[in-house]
Amino acid sequence: MKLKYIENGFQIIQDDRILLNHTSDNPAFFVGMGQEKISAYRGNFDIQDILMEKIPLTHCQFDNNQIQLSYQNNTPPLLILMYSSLEDGKSILTIKSENPTLNRFWIKLSSSESEKVWGCGEQMSYFNLRGRHFPLWTSEPGVGRDKSTELTFLSDKYNKAGGDYYNTNYPQPTFVSSEHYACHINSSAYADFDFRNQTYYELQVWEIPESIEFFTAPTFLELVEKLSLRFGRQPELPEWIYNGVILGLKGGEENSFSRLENAVESGIPVAGLWCEDWAGIRETSFGKRLFWDWKWSKNRYPNLDNRIQTLKEKNIRFLAYVSPYLCEDGELFPIAKEKSLFALNSKGEVALVDFGEFNCGVLDFTNKETREWFKKEIIQKNMLDLGVSGWMADFGEYLPTEDLFLANGVSSTIMHNAWPPLWASVNAEAVAERGLTGEVMYFMRAGFTNTQKYCPMLWAGDQCVDFSRHDGLNTVICGALSSGILGNAYHHSDIGGYTSLFGNRRTKEVFERWVDMAAFTPMMRTHECNRPDENFQFDHDIATMAHLAKMVKIYKHLTPYLKHFSNEAHTKGYPIQRALFLHFENDLNTYDIQDQYLYGSELLVAPVHKQAVHEWKVYLPAGETWVYVWDKKEIRGGQYLLVPALIGQPPLFYRKDSKWATLFDDIVNIE
Amino acid sequence: MKLKYIENGFQIIQDDRILLNHTSDNPAFFVGMGQEKISAYRGNFDIQDILMEKIPLTHCQFDNNQIQLSYQNNTPPLLILMYSSLEDGKSILTIKSENPTLNRFWIKLSSSESEKVWGCGEQMSYFNLRGRHFPLWTSEPGVGRDKSTELTFLSDKYNKAGGDYYNTNYPQPTFVSSEHYACHINSSAYADFDFRNQTYYELQVWEIPESIEFFTAPTFLELVEKLSLRFGRQPELPEWIYNGVILGLKGGEENSFSRLENAVESGIPVAGLWCEDWAGIRETSFGKRLFWDWKWSKNRYPNLDNRIQTLKEKNIRFLAYVSPYLCEDGELFPIAKEKSLFALNSKGEVALVDFGEFNCGVLDFTNKETREWFKKEIIQKNMLDLGVSGWMADFGEYLPTEDLFLANGVSSTIMHNAWPPLWASVNAEAVAERGLTGEVMYFMRAGFTNTQKYCPMLWAGDQCVDFSRHDGLNTVICGALSSGILGNAYHHSDIGGYTSLFGNRRTKEVFERWVDMAAFTPMMRTHECNRPDENFQFDHDIATMAHLAKMVKIYKHLTPYLKHFSNEAHTKGYPIQRALFLHFENDLNTYDIQDQYLYGSELLVAPVHKQAVHEWKVYLPAGETWVYVWDKKEIRGGQYLLVPALIGQPPLFYRKDSKWATLFDDIVNIE
Repeated sequence: MKLKYIENGFQIIQDDRILLNHTSDNPAFFVGMGQEKISAYRGNFDIQDILMEKIPLTHCQFDNNQIQLSYQNNTPPLLILMYSSLEDGKSILTIKSENPTLNRFWIKLSSSESEKVWGCGEQMSYFNLRGRHFPLWTSEPGVGRDKSTELTFLSDKYNKAGGDYYNTNYPQPTFVSSEHYACHINSSAYADFDFRNQTYYELQVWEIPESIEFFTAPTFLELVEKLSLRFGRQPELPEWIYNGVILGLKGGEENSFSRLENAVESGIPVAGLWCEDWAGIRETSFGKRLFWDWKWSKNRYPNLDNRIQTLKEKNIRFLAYVSPYLCEDGELFPIAKEKSLFALNSKGEVALVDFGEFNCGVLDFTNKETREWFKKEIIQKNMLDLGVSGWMADFGEYLPTEDLFLANGVSSTIMHNAWPPLWASVNAEAVAERGLTGEVMYFMRAGFTNTQKYCPMLWAGDQCVDFSRHDGLNTVICGALSSGILGNAYHHSDIGGYTSLFGNRRTKEVFERWVDMAAFTPMMRTHECNRPDENFQFDHDIATMAHLAKMVKIYKHLTPYLKHFSNEAHTKGYPIQRALFLHFENDLNTYDIQDQYLYGSELLVAPVHKQAVHEWKVYLPAGETWVYVWDKKEIRGGQYLLVPALIGQPPLFYRKDSKWATLFDDIVNIE
Repeated sequence: MKLKYIENGFQIIQDDRILLNHTSDNPAFFVGMGQEKISAYRGNFDIQDILMEKIPLTHCQFDNNQIQLSYQNNTPPLLILMYSSLEDGKSILTIKSENPTLNRFWIKLSSSESEKVWGCGEQMSYFNLRGRHFPLWTSEPGVGRDKSTELTFLSDKYNKAGGDYYNTNYPQPTFVSSEHYACHINSSAYADFDFRNQTYYELQVWEIPESIEFFTAPTFLELVEKLSLRFGRQPELPEWIYNGVILGLKGGEENSFSRLENAVESGIPVAGLWCEDWAGIRETSFGKRLFWDWKWSKNRYPNLDNRIQTLKEKNIRFLAYVSPYLCEDGELFPIAKEKSLFALNSKGEVALVDFGEFNCGVLDFTNKETREWFKKEIIQKNMLDLGVSGWMADFGEYLPTEDLFLANGVSSTIMHNAWPPLWASVNAEAVAERGLTGEVMYFMRAGFTNTQKYCPMLWAGDQCVDFSRHDGLNTVICGALSSGILGNAYHHSDIGGYTSLFGNRRTKEVFERWVDMAAFTPMMRTHECNRPDENFQFDHDIATMAHLAKMVKIYKHLTPYLKHFSNEAHTKGYPIQRALFLHFENDLNTYDIQDQYLYGSELLVAPVHKQAVHEWKVYLPAGETWVYVWDKKEIRGGQYLLVPALIGQPPLFYRKDSKWATLFDDIVNIE
């Protein structure tokens, strides 16, 4: 990319196309002022802006390397830009403003009608972002996420929690265009990327951002490689992950361990036992919740230390749970309060957040002492020393914007989006200090720019236990593809989904379809969901356990394959689950597909994500001959195909000439 | 009010307070550009704005009487203002722009925290507008109008019709402040009046408005008087209205006339028979709809001409129905098409509007020939010559903004809000040309600035057949008070409500509570609702007919009283139904009351608008002693009172020293 001065303005040129065109008639830069009103309710944010000014910067003046932008000829500059073209297809536009009252920024990029864009973090509803705008603010993703469903309506009505298509735990002001460039804005302020217009994109940020980075590459894969280098590459998967499924059980010691034994005896390969409730539980109207006091609950798990050792001898790891908050009624709260580790309110008291019938203090990770305490006392002493091999590092999206003050002095509105990677970094450092990076596996749903630098594994958050379009099984695929294109290599989800509310219950069918998909993700993990007693569980019948056993065996069978791609993820940043077009750029039909993916480069997976279907329609990319795993039939790519939608035989294809063909051929023999 | 020049700006001063403060640090004027996207679905509009610029006009320069506003010192003026203080507390700010690309305008007025504002047309949810913003765009008001109700959810889901608190058939860019001033913007463009901020109001208009008018007066009543003079005063009620209720029946000739006879025989005083279906019907999924071909349907009413004459001899008038559209499958459509009376699309064809399973042409009333034809052929020949004494002049809110071209050359987006008074004026002229102004009674739901100049009676639109907060009985009162404060003297509603959808059915209780209120409005009129067969009707049982008879007798009994205030309405513009504070300025408790009203100046009505209640809480304004009509008990004002919530004895009070006391005392004897 290069900068080109033109009459009355300038352009940023990418090869032979104009990416940004700034003229006095049609400016690409705007600044302004707004006054936002952000109301939070349990991680759901109502955000309104009263826009006070939006000034087009119609005049520009060039001074050495600087571009001074002002409203008109005789008015003082409001923005000062510096464009630098760096090596390797990267360029950066640094932005300065000398007017501290400006808190709104807009940039317009040129687009063509047929162009597609992907990314903006982990998007659950839409992979291709064209035609919509995407507010970028980490939050609860919503329950239902579709204003036309009864479930969303009830969630909105009773919990302000229905959500919408753009709500996500992990937003990021970064997108990839089908024109082979990526754009990233360096700011953690609220942003809104608007892809509704046919001829331009308008990116809005609620501060003057530090800089905007552009990346170009001849192929999408190389673009992903560059982004992953920019935002962080992840370690290879731990060896123990390949041992089998991680069973999520939270019934206390006797219940959890006996069900685990039963699973093992039933032939299910188990890699880990994940007990969210290791620190205790509390009952709320939402269901069983955890007791947020991050230490071994000797009450609920009396022999946990010994149990963990015994498990390890059987090659099964124990996983726990932690969040960046401490509940007011726990034992750790007064200790952390005494040490001034919490964020404060305007009265100088601990700022409390309502998490749904209980309040917590927000551990202030901008305070070095908080980080050190949490790393040492919680992660290292209470978890790693106990023998814990991984955990869900939950939450990170709730940082309030009102009446909350942080040690680093930055406004909590600006820090809100920055919180997930900050929280991830505490986990990363604690693990690294013990030399356990790549050995311990924690997983997170909250994210933002740089998340993958600190977080070895995403989990897709709290889907509904159903097949719904905007909150069911299929959204997990969209989440994997959109986060993957920004260089997040590892993604997985709660098998069977999590959220069961307002009569929505997990069925055996939902559970089994989810298992069928999860076998082709980097990590298999079950979850009992928020209301275990009312929902279908993996051990509710022998047939389901047999099915789970088979699919875990397939997952295990693919260990050498997955290891290969895990190494590639580590060295090149390619995601394990890939959008089809990452390998089939020339087949434009693949650009809008968001419910199929390549698992590595060789296997194509098209998970069945609807209820009571007997057939499934799959698109096979052009330029390749595909082999249907279950009957070895060969199909020329570039066409749609109907295959049987059998439980235990998910639509699965491999490239005919793959060097892994023999491995794939054996899948059909696994029982 | 007066203009005052200050350093770096100017002020508009109202007595001792600053109404508008424009300085370079804190400008009150902004201009900009936006690109709206307006999607219409059967009168429900989804309106989105992509705001491209919002420029604060920080610099001002004075040149004779002109104020030139620009962005900064050296930049060209973007607005030119002229302020004129007229006689009688009126002033006007004329606005000019030489930049035709500007299509957004904002003005900020100063406000105090305790100030209230009312108006903005006929608002159905909130009388005091503080704390919310009000988009001003004539449309369907919505079904349910409350996102937390199932009915609204289903209406949104299936018909895009749920609506919200601000949706109204009759918006108007005019408000009255408790600081004794009113403000009106002369523009029919989309506007949004934002009263959310504590220290200022921000009024947004999607064009540069011609002018802004300010009115001041020492009392609210005098302010109403001035506004009614500005926007039009209405004739006195026709004599025949006082004869009783207007029965809405649409079952064809035999059914309608026999039910009318039955009503008369049951002792119900009847002023009119209103047959919406005089021109025929069609069946749709919404219910029975009318056949929009405005002429006597000899099929459905074979002897209508004779019937009307016979009725008249019995002192009962016949009312019909008309809308400003013609259905494509009617007989009049090809005639009007042949004469080029319709608005056209970009292909030069008749622009059709979907009204719910049938399409209509939009009669272009900016075309003089259309007006003349409609007046002569439809209103005069087809209606007045047939002996029709009144009609519902329905609709006016649906003017599409896309692909519709009008004879006057003005964009349909600008004409959209102007359409209701344009439609009203066709009715007014047709009636006036026959010398029947004040004798013929038509009523409308759609409105905008100047509506009352052409429309003798508002009707509150299509409430749900229930007691719901945002679409039930109580919203009619809010509609009467908010339209009343802008000088609309006459308001009434469909007794029992209109919209029955998704299992919402009119009960006997809803019907009777509505009757109890309607007796204290300028006109009583029943409506069978959209699904007559599934909803309670006035003649479903003898007790209900007896109750209706009694309440109509009370209405009739008050004829001299109502006539007095109808005369006052005509001469001074005071509404028949008045907000309490119009007469009790000193009692601040009255400023937020929107479910009680004064009927004339002497009677206080507090309609019971909830289900299954046995008591009703009433506020009686301070500074008056009130007499409870049903037991003559005297109560000092300035307090809340609990009274029995009996059907047939609505909470009703009169001023102890009223000259009408004897008339009121007789109410209790009416049976």
